[in-house]
Amino acid sequence: MSELGEFELISRFFGLGRRSGKTNDSQSDDVLIDIGDDAAVLKIPQEQRLVVSSDTLVDGIHFPKNSPSALIAQRALRVNLSDMAAMGATPRWFTLALTLPEVNESWLSDFSEALHADAELFGCRLVGGDTTRGPLNIGIQIMGTVDNELEAITRAGAEPDDLLVVTGTLGDAAGALDYLDSEGLDQSAADLLRRYWIPEPRVEFAKATQQFIRAGCDISDGLLADVGHICKASQVGVEVDAAKLPISPSLSQCCGSSAVAKALSGGDDYELCLAVSPDSYEDISALAREQGILITTVGRFTSATEISCINADEALSSAGGRDSNGYQHF
Amino acid sequence: MSELGEFELISRFFGLGRRSGKTNDSQSDDVLIDIGDDAAVLKIPQEQRLVVSSDTLVDGIHFPKNSPSALIAQRALRVNLSDMAAMGATPRWFTLALTLPEVNESWLSDFSEALHADAELFGCRLVGGDTTRGPLNIGIQIMGTVDNELEAITRAGAEPDDLLVVTGTLGDAAGALDYLDSEGLDQSAADLLRRYWIPEPRVEFAKATQQFIRAGCDISDGLLADVGHICKASQVGVEVDAAKLPISPSLSQCCGSSAVAKALSGGDDYELCLAVSPDSYEDISALAREQGILITTVGRFTSATEISCINADEALSSAGGRDSNGYQHF
Repeated sequence: MSELGEFELISRFFGLGRRSGKTNDSQSDDVLIDIGDDAAVLKIPQEQRLVVSSDTLVDGIHFPKNSPSALIAQRALRVNLSDMAAMGATPRWFTLALTLPEVNESWLSDFSEALHADAELFGCRLVGGDTTRGPLNIGIQIMGTVDNELEAITRAGAEPDDLLVVTGTLGDAAGALDYLDSEGLDQSAADLLRRYWIPEPRVEFAKATQQFIRAGCDISDGLLADVGHICKASQVGVEVDAAKLPISPSLSQCCGSSAVAKALSGGDDYELCLAVSPDSYEDISALAREQGILITTVGRFTSATEISCINADEALSSAGGRDSNGYQHF
Repeated sequence: MSELGEFELISRFFGLGRRSGKTNDSQSDDVLIDIGDDAAVLKIPQEQRLVVSSDTLVDGIHFPKNSPSALIAQRALRVNLSDMAAMGATPRWFTLALTLPEVNESWLSDFSEALHADAELFGCRLVGGDTTRGPLNIGIQIMGTVDNELEAITRAGAEPDDLLVVTGTLGDAAGALDYLDSEGLDQSAADLLRRYWIPEPRVEFAKATQQFIRAGCDISDGLLADVGHICKASQVGVEVDAAKLPISPSLSQCCGSSAVAKALSGGDDYELCLAVSPDSYEDISALAREQGILITTVGRFTSATEISCINADEALSSAGGRDSNGYQHF
């Protein structure tokens, strides 16, 4: 089969995979022209804004070489979905730019099945993209909508005395890095790996609590780095209390004394990091309980222009690279 | 500088580059939240549909290794703009997923300057994306709008007896392939290379003639392959007259007797290939003259389910891989 033929096969594969899935009628109505033309044509619901983000995963950089393609697909889509959650947006459509070193049908079959299953789970739909030959690279651009009136969650808007609230547990994905090439894992290590490969984008939580959130972003680079983005955009500081960090039993068991450092600085958790007025905490907390999502207040925004961390001397010194007093200026 | 620091530099670089450019006020109003948050928030004008496409260029596959980064940037953006032209859409925004093997400031400076210059030329704006480390890969997703009432140009809709009309000259980019690694070129070869690296997306022409176009696509894989897409989607056939192909003097000079084969089957020209009712030809022709764009009728759609080519025996046999009678069934 010629190279072109092979890549036409892939296009058909993704096209067919998508069409064979269950489709939600209201979604279908949004897609006026679908995969198979020069571009897709989409109908943005009235009184909605378009929210757009893209994230790329590179073989050997964002995941180990020879990783299972189903996991790569899930991680690639969910990392993008997390950006929708960070904005309080409803994910709707995505495009896929897939660069492949070769056409391996079993690899592709696993990849596209996992991709379409997760797309269905999160209510979004593959509407275009391209496949090319080259070193493995998975680029997804996700598009969602946010209500005109509600407005998107941004990194700007945190105020001194706002609570720093995070979803889920932190550091698990960083804890998984030691186990990526291992086999025969115990349950704790397997839990961490699941958190690394299949993060839980907090889309529904963000949508439900949007009106109570002053500022927010997702935690992709690590809590301290990402809360730093909020501080910079909001022109505030923050004091993080390391003693309050939500650390999973699996992380404690696998990583012991380095768990706190991973929760502070480890990336890839794709939880949310939010600025919440103390007056709104009860509302958010009630919605979190309803959805069965853990939220934890791990600090407080301040009027200083620094990120400080208390109760973390040991953790920070083992994380390395930071002032021993636990302060990071920006 | 740490890896993270380097890649933060790139983000700032693209951010600053964009903001320092002239901005069109109406465009700025469309971008409610810009680069620098988790996602961009865009305002789709009322009574408009969103048109989305993505195209990726891979180092050593879509262009030779060590090519000038300014040319890579122009080609990457224009290939995507051509998809907007193919739909009759107005390009508005794009995201960039840039995977780089290393941070080379002079490479990046040339790349981003060329990218922003072309974005300004075509009235679209970089609103997001990411930079990652890995083998060079340039993924662009372009977003445009099309008027609700006018509807997009699609591949479906061609009818028997419609004229097959193409813009510009064909085969030039294919002719350039022999010269990609050459130096000290004469003017003709330099012309072909310019056509390869800096295609002219026919955005304004498509918008102006949209109401007269029954079906269309851009020519990325070669005229015969791309007109085949229209035939398949429209359930018609086509008879291409090789004697009528618009061939540039530069292509004739550089490629001699293989010029016709390149015009029929060579890719990368990013001209438009359109189905036009004979009744509309004069209207389209007048608009082409106004814009100084060459258009040529190179065939006619038919009720047969085949692509046939007349006056091309020699050309087709030198192109290889096709039936000697010049017919390709689908």
